Amino acid sequence: MNTTTIDPDVTSGSLISSDKVEGTKVYNTTGETLGSIDCLMIDKHSGNVRYAVLEFGGFLGMNTDRYPLPWNMLKYDTRQDGYVVPMDKARLKDAPRYPHTAVPPYTSEYAGSVDRYYGL
Amino acid sequence: MNTTTIDPDVTSGSLISSDKVEGTKVYNTTGETLGSIDCLMIDKHSGNVRYAVLEFGGFLGMNTDRYPLPWNMLKYDTRQDGYVVPMDKARLKDAPRYPHTAVPPYTSEYAGSVDRYYGL
Repeated sequence: MNTTTIDPDVTSGSLISSDKVEGTKVYNTTGETLGSIDCLMIDKHSGNVRYAVLEFGGFLGMNTDRYPLPWNMLKYDTRQDGYVVPMDKARLKDAPRYPHTAVPPYTSEYAGSVDRYYGL
Repeated sequence: MNTTTIDPDVTSGSLISSDKVEGTKVYNTTGETLGSIDCLMIDKHSGNVRYAVLEFGGFLGMNTDRYPLPWNMLKYDTRQDGYVVPMDKARLKDAPRYPHTAVPPYTSEYAGSVDRYYGL
């Protein structure tokens, strides 16, 4: 298939690969780095991405925690080449989190508690 | 958060992690292995997963190609611990594909050509 005529600026069209999202930095609106995306949580039935899981905390990259963030909270900023979330760093202090070795079941109860924390 | 009362069989509730989907085997309805999921292509605006990208072909795991499969074609089969696609292996012969070193822009034209190939 010939794709050379397509504007190279439209690097991946309107779609993005999950492996490009994973590892992408997350900033807040004041430019502080909150962490990076570890993985996405996808609704098995609808195929909708529900949460981007933020990797944050720890010491020298060890023992980081995972923070599910509602996908709708993230906006991609081409200038920073990362996602921007309208949230103070302090907001993460009491946010729903888990160690990557103990992923909780993402039941509707759990998802509801995450959504409520972020006021959705 | 206490999650111990939740049925352990519901390992991740109704959501699944992108990093669990990546690497999952893909079979056809006669049980042949077609390959495995390399990544997912996600609509940037809606957050909907549009394609699961199948890794297939090559020789001894080298020079495999990538085949975008419409997400709706995949059904998860707990017995085989993999996705099942209603498709003959021969169908992949002329299917839209690319080397992993040359991912095309997933424009609406490209996505349309993939959907048409699979009769969607």
